[in-house]
Amino acid sequence: MIVVRETALRKMVLNLKKLLDNIKKANDIKNISQKDLPILAGEIRKFMLKNISNTGGHLASNLGVVELTLALHYCFEPEYDRIVWDVGHQAYTHKILTGRKDIFNTLRQYGGLSGFPKPNESVCDAFVTGHSSTSISVALGMAKARDITGGNEKIIAVIGDGSLTGGLAYEGLNNAGRSNTDIVVILNDNQMSIGSNVGAVSKHLNDLRMDKAYLSAKEGVHKFLDKVPFGKKIDKAIENIKDGLKYALVSGIMFEELGFRYIGPVDGHDIDELISIFNKIKDLKGPIIIHTKTIKGKGYRFAEKLPWQYHGVGEFDIKTGKTVKKQKNISYSKVFGDTITALAENNNKIVAVSAAMVSGTGLENFKTKYPDRMFDVGIAEQHAVTFSAGMAIRGFIPFFAVYSTFLQRAYDEILHDVCLQKLHVILAIDRAGIVGADGETHQGIFDISFIAHMPNIVFMAPSNGTELKSMIIRAAEMDCPVAIRYPRESIPEKEIKTLIDIEIGKAETINEGNKIAIICCGTMIEKCQYAFDKLKTDGYNPMFVNARFIKPLDIEMVKNVCSKCDYVFTVEDNVLTGGFGSIFKNAVNAIGFKNFVYSFGFDDKFIEQGTREQLFEANGIDGEGIYKKIKAVIGRCKNG
Amino acid sequence: MIVVRETALRKMVLNLKKLLDNIKKANDIKNISQKDLPILAGEIRKFMLKNISNTGGHLASNLGVVELTLALHYCFEPEYDRIVWDVGHQAYTHKILTGRKDIFNTLRQYGGLSGFPKPNESVCDAFVTGHSSTSISVALGMAKARDITGGNEKIIAVIGDGSLTGGLAYEGLNNAGRSNTDIVVILNDNQMSIGSNVGAVSKHLNDLRMDKAYLSAKEGVHKFLDKVPFGKKIDKAIENIKDGLKYALVSGIMFEELGFRYIGPVDGHDIDELISIFNKIKDLKGPIIIHTKTIKGKGYRFAEKLPWQYHGVGEFDIKTGKTVKKQKNISYSKVFGDTITALAENNNKIVAVSAAMVSGTGLENFKTKYPDRMFDVGIAEQHAVTFSAGMAIRGFIPFFAVYSTFLQRAYDEILHDVCLQKLHVILAIDRAGIVGADGETHQGIFDISFIAHMPNIVFMAPSNGTELKSMIIRAAEMDCPVAIRYPRESIPEKEIKTLIDIEIGKAETINEGNKIAIICCGTMIEKCQYAFDKLKTDGYNPMFVNARFIKPLDIEMVKNVCSKCDYVFTVEDNVLTGGFGSIFKNAVNAIGFKNFVYSFGFDDKFIEQGTREQLFEANGIDGEGIYKKIKAVIGRCKNG
Repeated sequence: MIVVRETALRKMVLNLKKLLDNIKKANDIKNISQKDLPILAGEIRKFMLKNISNTGGHLASNLGVVELTLALHYCFEPEYDRIVWDVGHQAYTHKILTGRKDIFNTLRQYGGLSGFPKPNESVCDAFVTGHSSTSISVALGMAKARDITGGNEKIIAVIGDGSLTGGLAYEGLNNAGRSNTDIVVILNDNQMSIGSNVGAVSKHLNDLRMDKAYLSAKEGVHKFLDKVPFGKKIDKAIENIKDGLKYALVSGIMFEELGFRYIGPVDGHDIDELISIFNKIKDLKGPIIIHTKTIKGKGYRFAEKLPWQYHGVGEFDIKTGKTVKKQKNISYSKVFGDTITALAENNNKIVAVSAAMVSGTGLENFKTKYPDRMFDVGIAEQHAVTFSAGMAIRGFIPFFAVYSTFLQRAYDEILHDVCLQKLHVILAIDRAGIVGADGETHQGIFDISFIAHMPNIVFMAPSNGTELKSMIIRAAEMDCPVAIRYPRESIPEKEIKTLIDIEIGKAETINEGNKIAIICCGTMIEKCQYAFDKLKTDGYNPMFVNARFIKPLDIEMVKNVCSKCDYVFTVEDNVLTGGFGSIFKNAVNAIGFKNFVYSFGFDDKFIEQGTREQLFEANGIDGEGIYKKIKAVIGRCKNG
Repeated sequence: MIVVRETALRKMVLNLKKLLDNIKKANDIKNISQKDLPILAGEIRKFMLKNISNTGGHLASNLGVVELTLALHYCFEPEYDRIVWDVGHQAYTHKILTGRKDIFNTLRQYGGLSGFPKPNESVCDAFVTGHSSTSISVALGMAKARDITGGNEKIIAVIGDGSLTGGLAYEGLNNAGRSNTDIVVILNDNQMSIGSNVGAVSKHLNDLRMDKAYLSAKEGVHKFLDKVPFGKKIDKAIENIKDGLKYALVSGIMFEELGFRYIGPVDGHDIDELISIFNKIKDLKGPIIIHTKTIKGKGYRFAEKLPWQYHGVGEFDIKTGKTVKKQKNISYSKVFGDTITALAENNNKIVAVSAAMVSGTGLENFKTKYPDRMFDVGIAEQHAVTFSAGMAIRGFIPFFAVYSTFLQRAYDEILHDVCLQKLHVILAIDRAGIVGADGETHQGIFDISFIAHMPNIVFMAPSNGTELKSMIIRAAEMDCPVAIRYPRESIPEKEIKTLIDIEIGKAETINEGNKIAIICCGTMIEKCQYAFDKLKTDGYNPMFVNARFIKPLDIEMVKNVCSKCDYVFTVEDNVLTGGFGSIFKNAVNAIGFKNFVYSFGFDDKFIEQGTREQLFEANGIDGEGIYKKIKAVIGRCKNG
């Protein structure tokens, strides 16, 4: 009670000047009294809410780690020690504390602050982390580098319990646990999916295990026993009994088995407790895991109640928690979800697989209607693919719905476990192309390049919702690996009425023209249409093709185009190397033509954050950019 | 003693006719008396030794699982139940028992028996497994398919302890353990790297836990407690104490934590014990893991002593254990190993990383000389790459030496953890191109396609040992991601003397010619030289280029070639989609040329086993094939 009153009093005193105003750069937090940190936490939550409700961003996870981040920055040196944030979207407080508060309103905007850690934004950002489960491997690499160099910086990985399901995290844990190096893994557990809190006993054991006297006594016993004949055996027996007791009382067995010293669970919102633990472990050796329990969305009631709904948000109203949304057509994700839910009714072999993205990929209804045929395997894309292969070889038709960028994790499994055996697994590749505000680590601009060369696969790209629906229906009827890519976007149609008969390897020729040809891959169709219309106005009659198939490419179409057009332009939202344009060129030469083919797409580079339209324009593949370039190429060739 | 004498007696009786002669098809083993199975095991070992010493193959692992396989086939129905062999190279006995004994002498030969399970070879082969750690995911998919269908087949994954370090295996275990489905994982532990044998107590507990009476009693207690107020709490407390005891006495805690019922360790060479366990578990529900201990190389003294040396063997003499080797030049792997070992002497930032392939990639000397700078992370390619990235961002220069096909597992990590941050990690890609006898799952024919589109990477392909050495030295001096690909082959030189100055993005023009150009990628150079020489003889003077760089491609070279030659031929040992030829074509058009480019390489298909030369010829990319095709293309174009 006294503490509460004191805090309230200090709040009043400090009311005129916010603590947050004093945080201008890294380590400024160290000038704030420890007992004021809860107030600072409150201010940061308000600050984040105010900003994120405007910019959009990852809300719930960031609200959950405020105290944890404050404690880390209070105890460690962010410019010297290395804090590696797994799936870096939980690093907002870290950014606010390290000199980026004043540009926080540019979060996730084109040219603004990244939603993820970036070493080129701040020396306090240890590593770019956008995909899950990388932090332990990175931290171990850094720790080994330090060991060889002879430094003494602390290396800390902060990883959520969700990320721990990823195989890479386990590979990292497994290697780190046997590494005999100083590394701290902070498990930010906000779902209670791992371990269980056993209260007082656990707290007691934590204190015990961090007590240096206890530790040196333990080491002393070991050393003594080493000198006694059969000592090792006795030692082992003692260990067994002690371990047995320990296992009976605390969670974290798995981590201990993997060679970590386990501390926890700890209340991740209790700053004093966190600071106390962080200070104590500074001198402990070897791999340590600190299990903190936090509440996702902490401090914002809507987010606490529905943390997943507030995981990633757009613009919203703080008071009501409601999204400020412009009315749009339905998304490609929803078309996908609705279509396979309807298909599943008449085909009991259809199952859906997700790697922790049931909602994002439009599978919520499917899950409700067919819970026994919906397999959410957690963040484990490799397993999702190989698991699907196992079902397919037994006659089922698994649709693995996955974001393009996350499917990168399963390259080998798609190639070997699905394609090699021609198994009927369907990859529903959502968020293909530009995703926008999440930036470099989330753009789906590589999937054509990493999938199209795989043998036996049929790879489609719909240009609208009707085609997506038709392709999904067709995919369920095939008997080979299938991939369908579609963007994070609304379909152009108001609603889908008729279906199209999708013939495998057959493109749609929208306009039979001459001289110039525009070959469009997928939803770049609107931009191509713009260029086509302007060229028409200029007096040209371009051939206009909707490719539909990346593989097998429509060879008759290629022949037709090449025999009628001097200038062929391919358009895609993928990098150019290994992309649709390169496949087209291969086909042109393979059938004996030598037309000039200019490809629109992304150069081999990472595309930063921004809106989809900003990024298309910046890379010259908006409608106007395509039109102008086509004109320039024709002009140049005319003169050259 | 009695057992021994009886066995000896039966051996004498059976001497004239071998038991193995009665094994003609699946399930024939069931006609053999259980007490004769050890004799059959001996015969199979002799049979395998005799054959493998001729054909080469995976020896030690197969000698280790003879009894395990016999017991599985004795207890289960190989045509109905599903046995998924992880890294299928341990399935030789399985093949011998299922109708393939008579063609076992064609093992790993072109057109012969595959060294891995293949469903199209036998209905008894559940799944193609060539890469590690897939079996649990596959088995879980099959089990879920069975559950929905309502079948009762047993699903069994057999996985080695080495494979368990792969993250995919963990993703599978984690998902299977919570799946509430009937699945059996047999852990074939031949290195004692996991768990520890605690003898009698363990055996006792095994018996106890498989005892139905015990199990139903346990369930009864649970049910009773559910009805008592606070019963759940008491129940939990009992569980804690019981579990504590269990943990104190047996290994396998990790598996129990992951939701498996753990049985073991079991002597994997004791057929009676194995059969007894397999029969008992038939009626047990849920996920079960059986931990068997086996000796790699069992029954062949050389292999038992040096199991890793006899893991994969070529032709050898059974009596001496010595390899029958033709004298060859040194391998590319050795050039790599020698070079970085020498480099490391003057550059203490150079470290080597391996994923359980220290010997295969030529790193043995490095390991001996610099044990603190050699990181063997086990079968964990994803971790190897991200760990390397962690070291690189702290100023070290990691060389990750890895087989091309296994690097497929780390696609996402190369792209995001290395290339996105332009980190100076060097991928030494061994076994690029055709590897030969291991077949489909081991050919390194995809690496250009899955790496070349990655931003910021420099990708080289040496055409001989001198170039490889020079490129490695150059790679250590760069400051960006680097990949170097080289084959499972000897270098053409007798020895390496002089070095070459490797200029980034600069090709070597071997002959400044006209009309025809041959652009060679990497070690296809000898085949190109053959074609070049014949074309010379025919009166042509082809341009002949050794590309050296896949990325950045030498644009000046492309201009020179395109302005002088009508017919451009690219040659590579990679699939054509996204391969070197497609990159070349992209460049041709991007700089405004429209030459005809014909690409030699592999169509998008999986390449089966055979010798390197057989496979090049079969795919038309041997010297003669290239020469003939060039002539045909020129002829066709002349007339067309």
